[in-house]
Amino acid sequence: MSDSSVVPETRVLAVASHVVSGYVGNKIAVFSLQSLGCDVAALNTVQFSNHTGYRQWTGSRVSAEEITELYRGLKQSYLDDFDMMLSGYVPGAAALEVVGRIGEELKRNAVAQGRPGSFFWVLDPVMGDNGNLYVAPDVVPVYKSLVPHADLVLPNQFEAELLSETPITSMESIGHAIQVLHQRYAIPHVVITSVSLPHPDHPVSSLSVVGSSMTSDRRARPFKIVFPAIDCYFSGTGDMFAALMCVRMREAVHELDERRNKAAVDGEEGSGEGARLMDRPSWLSDDDVDALDLPLARAAEKVLATMHEVLTKTAERMQETVEKARARLAAAEVDGAEEGSNVEEEKKRMHLLRSKAAELRLVRHLDSLRFPKVEFRATRL
Amino acid sequence: MSDSSVVPETRVLAVASHVVSGYVGNKIAVFSLQSLGCDVAALNTVQFSNHTGYRQWTGSRVSAEEITELYRGLKQSYLDDFDMMLSGYVPGAAALEVVGRIGEELKRNAVAQGRPGSFFWVLDPVMGDNGNLYVAPDVVPVYKSLVPHADLVLPNQFEAELLSETPITSMESIGHAIQVLHQRYAIPHVVITSVSLPHPDHPVSSLSVVGSSMTSDRRARPFKIVFPAIDCYFSGTGDMFAALMCVRMREAVHELDERRNKAAVDGEEGSGEGARLMDRPSWLSDDDVDALDLPLARAAEKVLATMHEVLTKTAERMQETVEKARARLAAAEVDGAEEGSNVEEEKKRMHLLRSKAAELRLVRHLDSLRFPKVEFRATRL
Repeated sequence: MSDSSVVPETRVLAVASHVVSGYVGNKIAVFSLQSLGCDVAALNTVQFSNHTGYRQWTGSRVSAEEITELYRGLKQSYLDDFDMMLSGYVPGAAALEVVGRIGEELKRNAVAQGRPGSFFWVLDPVMGDNGNLYVAPDVVPVYKSLVPHADLVLPNQFEAELLSETPITSMESIGHAIQVLHQRYAIPHVVITSVSLPHPDHPVSSLSVVGSSMTSDRRARPFKIVFPAIDCYFSGTGDMFAALMCVRMREAVHELDERRNKAAVDGEEGSGEGARLMDRPSWLSDDDVDALDLPLARAAEKVLATMHEVLTKTAERMQETVEKARARLAAAEVDGAEEGSNVEEEKKRMHLLRSKAAELRLVRHLDSLRFPKVEFRATRL
Repeated sequence: MSDSSVVPETRVLAVASHVVSGYVGNKIAVFSLQSLGCDVAALNTVQFSNHTGYRQWTGSRVSAEEITELYRGLKQSYLDDFDMMLSGYVPGAAALEVVGRIGEELKRNAVAQGRPGSFFWVLDPVMGDNGNLYVAPDVVPVYKSLVPHADLVLPNQFEAELLSETPITSMESIGHAIQVLHQRYAIPHVVITSVSLPHPDHPVSSLSVVGSSMTSDRRARPFKIVFPAIDCYFSGTGDMFAALMCVRMREAVHELDERRNKAAVDGEEGSGEGARLMDRPSWLSDDDVDALDLPLARAAEKVLATMHEVLTKTAERMQETVEKARARLAAAEVDGAEEGSNVEEEKKRMHLLRSKAAELRLVRHLDSLRFPKVEFRATRL
């Protein structure tokens, strides 16, 4: 009957898309955050039947005006007391600007109350992947204008190139891109996700994330975490990563404060100095904290552990499902029951089936969400 | 890393309202279902900033056409393979008719495939409470037309009166109302919630639910569960009850089948006869099963255990929060900082604060959701 939550009381505003069936956007973020104990206000920017990877869907977008109205509704009833904000996919530049103004206002309020650490904004700049922009070009400058107001930004490799205007072709150039992001945008925390760059020390089939929390003079403190790639395309992994980073960052900072507090009570030397990390602007660690000791690194390790467990389980199950379906379709063909169908139709049907089978199975693996086993550790870039 | 879910694989279509902040409708149902392991397709019928108990809110309703479109989107991608459907608040008669047709179609498909037990519809006929209708009058006949297609209906005392057209004034008359519901609508399972009727055997401050699964000739098998009332008004309790009944009914039937299957393997006498309960139409128990042995009774016991734990915790926390707020407001008054405010404004502010404090704290009590301790047992009506 006791409070079994992983994080301290945390009220999060999550702004992203909603799909009726399957797991992307807020459909994945809300459950991830809630299962770790967050009170989530979920502002859905679209309601689609399913994610766009199926190549067909129905539903509608929420307009910039509707987002403004929903936020006004929260404010008028004193429901805008958020500790964190997580912003993901927002349809179009106008709606994105509105979401940006919400983030800026919440940050401004926290500073005005003399409690700069009481609000933390995790911004996932959803623009594209693998060299392809999948939003309208006018969205890019809006994201560039928002990054300086966020606390943690989570671009993938392509989005990091767009924001930093720096080509990323090697693990060295990614370090440079992170330095540019800190310098230009004064963004305190950066994690570049799904980095796929060759490196002599990395196993052939691996991916990495590269993260950094800047120092007071905006120097990068980069670390990387290398993990095995799973040979399968999943939708929603970016959204899951962002949601989990949000809550695990909160947890890591809280744990550090608890440890320092305990050390101070025990009278240990060098402890208990300064305010709680969670009271500081952007929860930014002292300059003398090493890259590998950053709360951001601890958070990313746990997030990747969860992701790896859930993705492995999803891939296993997916293979079974797809093989069964293929056998069923083949049998139907032999029976002549599927006479009317042609090759194109069958290809489409297999694509739809594969898309469904690739939906992340996080609700079946709650323990992986809550208590992952950390295997992949942060190392120096 | 293993599957830690409470129920077997279960795909649920949940149709209800969505609020950005707080917990009613799908905001409560989706998390309740997911945390027990269900794959939930969440079709949101409204997106409001908060529930209407705050007396002010923003947001918009989804039209009957949009609901039709979303369902068409699911069908065209083979995403309509639901094991269960849970329907809650739907705005207006036209939208409710559309939702009803979805339920009817899914049921018809299951029967046409020769698998009548493969779809189970839990219908929460949201119409009103305590003698007050809070939907348009033309919604009532629509619900009456839908009940015969559902498997389990969960009216509160007032809604049971509306559907049965029978006044409920005593524990005796409630038994009569249940008999009328089975008889008139051929609805297999009924649970009447938040029953507040005096009875010599019940403690003064108690509530009860009264449930029944009919026999093959539509005779009621009524049971009741009496539990202590909590002196506080919460929103969303009906939605939470319905969502949990949905998943716990599935669990209870599955467990019974597992036990019978094991007994058959062990060669026990009288075991293993007939098909799995879950394969039968509406999962309806044999006529010789006693009211107190019904899966419906097992499910309701677990649901009430969870509800009691979560509500108790919410009430404790609420009291703290409201007392603190009152002290803060009183202090501000003494300081003269709130000079401009008048009595009406203060009353409104306290109402908003109390509404927020009364939001069900289920995300902080995941263990109560998943592993409740059953204290209140079903007894004869």
